[in-house]
Amino acid sequence: MADSDKQSILELYMGEALKEAKKAEAHGDIPVGAIIVREGKIIARGHNLREQEQSVLLHAEIVAIQEACKALGSWRLRDCDLYVTLEPCPMCAGAIIEAQMRTVIFGADDSKWGAGGSLFQLLESPLLNYQAKVISGICAEESKALLQQFFAARRNTNPAK
Amino acid sequence: MADSDKQSILELYMGEALKEAKKAEAHGDIPVGAIIVREGKIIARGHNLREQEQSVLLHAEIVAIQEACKALGSWRLRDCDLYVTLEPCPMCAGAIIEAQMRTVIFGADDSKWGAGGSLFQLLESPLLNYQAKVISGICAEESKALLQQFFAARRNTNPAK
Repeated sequence: MADSDKQSILELYMGEALKEAKKAEAHGDIPVGAIIVREGKIIARGHNLREQEQSVLLHAEIVAIQEACKALGSWRLRDCDLYVTLEPCPMCAGAIIEAQMRTVIFGADDSKWGAGGSLFQLLESPLLNYQAKVISGICAEESKALLQQFFAARRNTNPAK
Repeated sequence: MADSDKQSILELYMGEALKEAKKAEAHGDIPVGAIIVREGKIIARGHNLREQEQSVLLHAEIVAIQEACKALGSWRLRDCDLYVTLEPCPMCAGAIIEAQMRTVIFGADDSKWGAGGSLFQLLESPLLNYQAKVISGICAEESKALLQQFFAARRNTNPAK
Protein backbone atom coordinates (compact mmCIF):
# COMPACT_ATOMS: atom_id res chain seq x y z
CA MET A 1 0.00 0.00 0.00
CA ALA A 2 1.32 3.46 -0.93
CA ASP A 3 2.15 5.85 1.90
CA SER A 4 -0.54 8.28 0.69
CA ASP A 5 -3.16 5.50 0.91
CA LYS A 6 -2.08 4.65 4.46
CA GLN A 7 -2.33 8.33 5.40
CA SER A 8 -5.84 8.51 3.90
CA ILE A 9 -6.98 5.55 5.97
CA LEU A 10 -5.59 7.07 9.16
CA GLU A 11 -7.37 10.35 8.39
CA LEU A 12 -10.60 8.55 7.56
CA TYR A 13 -10.66 6.82 10.95
CA MET A 14 -9.60 10.00 12.75
CA GLY A 15 -12.58 11.68 11.09
CA GLU A 16 -14.77 9.21 12.98
CA ALA A 17 -12.99 10.08 16.24
CA LEU A 18 -13.58 13.78 15.48
CA LYS A 19 -17.31 13.08 15.07
CA GLU A 20 -17.22 11.57 18.58
CA ALA A 21 -15.38 14.64 19.93
CA LYS A 22 -18.18 16.90 18.70
CA LYS A 23 -20.70 14.86 20.73
CA ALA A 24 -18.73 15.69 23.92
CA GLU A 25 -18.83 19.39 23.10
CA ALA A 26 -22.62 19.25 22.75
CA HIS A 27 -22.99 18.54 26.49
CA GLY A 28 -20.23 20.85 27.76
CA ASP A 29 -17.44 18.29 28.00
CA ILE A 30 -13.98 19.01 26.60
CA PRO A 31 -14.25 17.80 22.98
CA VAL A 32 -12.21 14.61 22.74
CA GLY A 33 -13.34 11.53 20.84
CA ALA A 34 -12.00 8.03 20.24
CA ILE A 35 -12.70 4.93 18.21
CA ILE A 36 -11.21 1.42 18.31
CA VAL A 37 -10.54 -0.51 15.12
CA ARG A 38 -9.89 -4.24 14.77
CA GLU A 39 -9.42 -6.07 11.47
CA GLY A 40 -10.66 -3.06 9.52
CA LYS A 41 -13.86 -2.70 11.58
CA ILE A 42 -14.81 -0.04 14.14
CA ILE A 43 -15.65 -2.10 17.23
CA ALA A 44 -16.09 0.72 19.75
CA ARG A 45 -16.62 4.47 20.03
CA GLY A 46 -16.37 6.90 22.91
CA HIS A 47 -16.43 10.56 23.75
CA ASN A 48 -15.50 12.47 26.86
CA LEU A 49 -18.29 12.16 29.47
CA ARG A 50 -16.41 13.38 32.57
CA GLU A 51 -18.60 16.42 33.30
CA GLN A 52 -21.83 14.89 32.02
CA GLU A 53 -21.51 11.79 34.22
CA GLN A 54 -19.37 13.39 36.96
CA SER A 55 -16.94 10.49 36.75
CA VAL A 56 -13.21 11.16 36.56
CA LEU A 57 -12.78 7.90 34.65
CA LEU A 58 -14.90 8.67 31.61
CA HIS A 59 -12.38 10.07 29.14
CA ALA A 60 -13.13 9.21 25.50
CA GLU A 61 -10.50 6.43 25.44
CA ILE A 62 -11.85 4.77 28.61
CA VAL A 63 -15.42 4.83 27.27
CA ALA A 64 -14.24 3.22 24.02
CA ILE A 65 -12.07 0.65 25.83
CA GLN A 66 -15.01 -0.31 28.06
CA GLU A 67 -17.14 -0.87 24.96
CA ALA A 68 -14.40 -2.82 23.15
CA CYS A 69 -13.95 -5.18 26.13
CA LYS A 70 -17.70 -5.85 26.03
CA ALA A 71 -17.67 -6.36 22.25
CA LEU A 72 -14.80 -8.87 22.40
CA GLY A 73 -15.78 -10.42 25.76
CA SER A 74 -12.19 -10.02 26.89
CA TRP A 75 -10.08 -7.53 28.84
CA ARG A 76 -7.27 -8.07 26.37
CA LEU A 77 -7.63 -5.90 23.27
CA ARG A 78 -4.83 -7.41 21.20
CA ASP A 79 -4.67 -6.42 17.50
CA CYS A 80 -6.75 -3.36 18.30
CA ASP A 81 -5.85 0.18 17.22
CA LEU A 82 -7.10 3.23 19.09
CA TYR A 83 -7.71 6.54 17.33
CA VAL A 84 -8.10 9.54 19.63
CA THR A 85 -8.22 13.25 18.84
CA LEU A 86 -5.95 14.25 21.78
CA GLU A 87 -2.79 12.64 23.15
CA PRO A 88 -3.77 10.19 25.95
CA CYS A 89 -3.26 11.16 29.61
CA PRO A 90 -1.46 8.77 32.03
CA MET A 91 -4.74 7.08 33.07
CA CYS A 92 -5.74 6.32 29.48
CA ALA A 93 -2.20 5.39 28.40
CA GLY A 94 -2.03 2.93 31.32
CA ALA A 95 -5.34 1.32 30.31
CA ILE A 96 -4.19 1.07 26.66
CA ILE A 97 -0.95 -0.69 27.63
CA GLU A 98 -2.60 -3.06 30.11
CA ALA A 99 -5.13 -4.01 27.43
CA GLN A 100 -2.18 -4.87 25.17
CA MET A 101 -3.46 -2.72 22.32
CA ARG A 102 -1.36 -2.57 19.14
CA THR A 103 -1.28 1.04 17.95
CA VAL A 104 -2.36 4.44 19.24
CA ILE A 105 -3.03 7.10 16.61
CA PHE A 106 -3.61 10.54 18.07
CA GLY A 107 -4.32 14.07 16.80
CA ALA A 108 -3.24 17.02 18.92
CA ASP A 109 -0.39 16.95 21.44
CA ASP A 110 -1.18 17.60 25.13
CA SER A 111 1.64 19.48 26.83
CA LYS A 112 -0.06 19.36 30.27
CA TRP A 113 -1.12 15.70 30.54
CA GLY A 114 0.26 13.88 27.50
CA ALA A 115 1.63 10.40 28.18
CA GLY A 116 2.41 9.58 24.57
CA GLY A 117 5.66 11.50 24.53
CA SER A 118 4.82 15.10 25.47
CA LEU A 119 5.12 14.91 29.26
CA PHE A 120 5.66 11.18 29.83
CA GLN A 121 6.27 8.28 27.51
CA LEU A 122 4.08 5.48 28.88
CA LEU A 123 2.83 4.06 25.56
CA GLU A 124 6.26 3.07 24.26
CA SER A 125 8.06 2.62 27.59
CA PRO A 126 10.62 -0.20 27.57
CA LEU A 127 10.06 -0.52 31.35
CA LEU A 128 6.63 -2.10 30.85
CA ASN A 129 5.77 -5.59 29.61
CA TYR A 130 3.82 -4.24 26.64
CA GLN A 131 4.19 -1.29 24.29
CA ALA A 132 1.81 0.30 21.80
CA LYS A 133 3.18 1.87 18.64
CA VAL A 134 2.43 5.60 18.53
CA ILE A 135 1.47 7.59 15.42
CA SER A 136 0.90 11.26 16.23
CA GLY A 137 -0.28 14.39 14.43
CA ILE A 138 -3.14 12.85 12.39
CA CYS A 139 -5.78 15.58 11.80
CA ALA A 140 -3.92 17.50 14.50
CA GLU A 141 -5.05 20.95 13.33
CA GLU A 142 -8.73 20.01 13.30
CA SER A 143 -8.47 18.32 16.72
CA LYS A 144 -6.70 21.34 18.19
CA ALA A 145 -9.12 23.83 16.62
CA LEU A 146 -12.07 22.01 18.24
CA LEU A 147 -10.39 22.32 21.65
CA GLN A 148 -9.44 25.98 21.15
CA GLN A 149 -12.98 26.93 20.07
CA PHE A 150 -14.40 25.12 23.12
CA PHE A 151 -12.14 26.95 25.57
CA ALA A 152 -12.65 30.32 23.84
CA ALA A 153 -16.43 29.91 24.06
CA ARG A 154 -16.16 28.96 27.73
CA ARG A 155 -14.08 32.06 28.48
CA ASN A 156 -16.67 34.23 26.74
CA THR A 157 -19.51 32.71 28.77
CA ASN A 158 -17.62 33.03 32.04
CA PRO A 159 -14.82 35.61 31.77
CA ALA A 160 -13.54 34.73 35.27
CA LYS A 161 -12.40 31.29 34.07
CA MET B 1 -1.80 12.50 67.87
CA ALA B 2 1.10 10.16 68.72
CA ASP B 3 2.88 8.46 65.83
CA SER B 4 1.81 5.05 67.12
CA ASP B 5 -1.85 6.15 67.02
CA LYS B 6 -1.49 7.40 63.45
CA GLN B 7 0.09 4.08 62.47
CA SER B 8 -2.81 2.17 64.10
CA ILE B 9 -5.37 4.17 62.11
CA LEU B 10 -3.53 3.50 58.84
CA GLU B 11 -3.41 -0.22 59.66
CA LEU B 12 -7.08 -0.26 60.64
CA TYR B 13 -8.12 1.19 57.28
CA MET B 14 -5.70 -1.06 55.40
CA GLY B 15 -7.37 -3.99 57.17
CA GLU B 16 -10.59 -2.96 55.40
CA ALA B 17 -8.75 -2.86 52.04
CA LEU B 18 -7.40 -6.35 52.78
CA LYS B 19 -10.97 -7.59 53.37
CA GLU B 20 -11.79 -6.30 49.89
CA ALA B 21 -8.71 -8.04 48.42
CA LYS B 22 -9.98 -11.39 49.74
CA LYS B 23 -13.25 -10.89 47.84
CA ALA B 24 -11.28 -10.66 44.56
CA GLU B 25 -9.49 -13.91 45.34
CA ALA B 26 -12.83 -15.65 45.86
CA HIS B 27 -13.65 -15.29 42.14
CA GLY B 28 -10.19 -15.93 40.75
CA ASP B 29 -9.04 -12.32 40.40
CA ILE B 30 -5.61 -11.21 41.64
CA PRO B 31 -6.30 -10.25 45.29
CA VAL B 32 -6.08 -6.47 45.48
CA GLY B 33 -8.51 -4.34 47.46
CA ALA B 34 -9.07 -0.64 48.05
CA ILE B 35 -11.15 1.75 50.13
CA ILE B 36 -11.59 5.54 49.99
CA VAL B 37 -11.83 7.56 53.21
CA ARG B 38 -13.13 11.13 53.56
CA GLU B 39 -13.47 12.98 56.85
CA GLY B 40 -12.98 9.78 58.81
CA LYS B 41 -15.65 7.86 56.91
CA ILE B 42 -15.28 5.06 54.34
CA ILE B 43 -17.16 6.40 51.32
CA ALA B 44 -16.23 3.70 48.78
CA ARG B 45 -14.86 0.17 48.49
CA GLY B 46 -13.54 -1.83 45.58
CA HIS B 47 -11.81 -5.05 44.70
CA ASN B 48 -10.20 -6.28 41.52
CA LEU B 49 -12.86 -7.42 39.03
CA ARG B 50 -10.77 -7.60 35.85
CA GLU B 51 -11.18 -11.32 35.18
CA GLN B 52 -14.69 -11.60 36.60
CA GLU B 53 -16.05 -8.77 34.43
CA GLN B 54 -13.50 -9.13 31.57
CA SER B 55 -12.83 -5.40 31.72
CA VAL B 56 -9.25 -4.12 31.74
CA LEU B 57 -10.42 -1.05 33.68
CA LEU B 58 -11.75 -2.73 36.80
CA HIS B 59 -8.77 -2.67 39.13
CA ALA B 60 -9.70 -2.25 42.82
CA GLU B 61 -8.79 1.46 42.81
CA ILE B 62 -10.91 2.20 39.71
CA VAL B 63 -13.93 0.37 41.20
CA ALA B 64 -13.58 2.40 44.41
CA ILE B 65 -13.04 5.70 42.54
CA GLN B 66 -16.15 5.03 40.46
CA GLU B 67 -18.16 4.50 43.65
CA ALA B 68 -16.68 7.58 45.35
CA CYS B 69 -17.58 9.83 42.38
CA LYS B 70 -21.14 8.53 42.65
CA ALA B 71 -21.22 9.02 46.43
CA LEU B 72 -19.99 12.63 46.19
CA GLY B 73 -21.74 13.47 42.91
CA SER B 74 -18.47 14.88 41.61
CA TRP B 75 -15.51 13.75 39.55
CA ARG B 76 -13.22 15.65 41.91
CA LEU B 77 -12.33 13.60 44.98
CA ARG B 78 -10.58 16.33 46.95
CA ASP B 79 -9.79 15.60 50.64
CA CYS B 80 -10.10 11.89 49.89
CA ASP B 81 -7.52 9.29 50.89
CA LEU B 82 -7.17 5.99 49.04
CA TYR B 83 -5.98 2.83 50.79
CA VAL B 84 -4.93 0.01 48.47
CA THR B 85 -3.15 -3.25 49.21
CA LEU B 86 -0.81 -3.04 46.17
CA GLU B 87 1.07 -0.08 44.68
CA PRO B 88 -1.10 1.52 41.97
CA CYS B 89 -0.34 0.91 38.28
CA PRO B 90 -0.07 3.85 35.80
CA MET B 91 -3.79 3.67 34.91
CA CYS B 92 -4.88 3.86 38.56
CA ALA B 93 -2.24 6.45 39.51
CA GLY B 94 -3.42 8.63 36.62
CA ALA B 95 -7.05 8.40 37.78
CA ILE B 96 -6.02 9.24 41.38
CA ILE B 97 -4.13 12.37 40.29
CA GLU B 98 -6.82 13.56 37.91
CA ALA B 99 -9.41 13.16 40.71
CA GLN B 100 -7.18 15.41 42.85
CA MET B 101 -7.10 12.91 45.73
CA ARG B 102 -5.08 13.88 48.82
CA THR B 103 -3.17 10.78 49.95
CA VAL B 104 -2.47 7.27 48.67
CA ILE B 105 -1.61 4.68 51.30
CA PHE B 106 -0.46 1.38 49.84
CA GLY B 107 0.73 -2.01 51.09
CA ALA B 108 3.04 -4.07 48.90
CA ASP B 109 5.37 -2.62 46.26
CA ASP B 110 4.85 -3.61 42.61
CA SER B 111 8.15 -3.85 40.77
CA LYS B 112 6.46 -4.65 37.42
CA TRP B 113 3.73 -2.00 37.21
CA GLY B 114 4.14 0.32 40.23
CA ALA B 115 3.58 4.01 39.49
CA GLY B 116 4.00 5.15 43.10
CA GLY B 117 7.78 5.10 42.97
CA SER B 118 8.79 1.54 42.03
CA LEU B 119 8.79 1.80 38.24
CA PHE B 120 7.38 5.30 37.67
CA GLN B 121 6.57 8.15 39.98
CA LEU B 122 3.23 9.48 38.77
CA LEU B 123 1.59 10.13 42.14
CA GLU B 124 4.10 12.71 43.32
CA SER B 125 5.32 13.94 39.92
CA PRO B 126 6.16 17.67 39.85
CA LEU B 127 5.35 17.63 36.11
CA LEU B 128 1.62 17.31 36.77
CA ASN B 129 -0.81 19.94 38.08
CA TYR B 130 -1.71 17.82 41.12
CA GLN B 131 0.18 15.47 43.43
CA ALA B 132 -1.00 12.92 46.00
CA LYS B 133 1.09 12.29 49.08
CA VAL B 134 2.30 8.68 49.17
CA ILE B 135 2.59 6.50 52.29
CA SER B 136 3.87 3.02 51.46
CA GLY B 137 4.47 -0.26 53.27
CA ILE B 138 1.31 -0.31 55.45
CA CYS B 139 0.42 -4.00 56.12
CA ALA B 140 2.88 -4.77 53.31
CA GLU B 141 3.64 -8.31 54.51
CA GLU B 142 -0.01 -9.33 54.71
CA SER B 143 -0.76 -7.76 51.29
CA LYS B 144 2.22 -9.52 49.72
CA ALA B 145 1.42 -12.87 51.35
CA LEU B 146 -2.10 -12.77 49.89
CA LEU B 147 -0.65 -12.25 46.40
CA GLN B 148 2.01 -14.94 46.82
CA GLN B 149 -0.54 -17.52 48.03
CA PHE B 150 -2.78 -16.68 45.08
CA PHE B 151 -0.02 -17.18 42.50
CA ALA B 152 1.28 -20.34 44.22
CA ALA B 153 -2.23 -21.86 44.16
CA ARG B 154 -2.61 -20.95 40.50
CA ARG B 155 0.71 -22.63 39.62
CA ASN B 156 -0.39 -25.76 41.46
CA THR B 157 -3.69 -25.89 39.57
CA ASN B 158 -2.07 -25.24 36.21
CA PRO B 159 1.67 -26.10 36.33
CA ALA B 160 2.16 -24.73 32.78
CA LYS B 161 1.54 -21.14 33.96
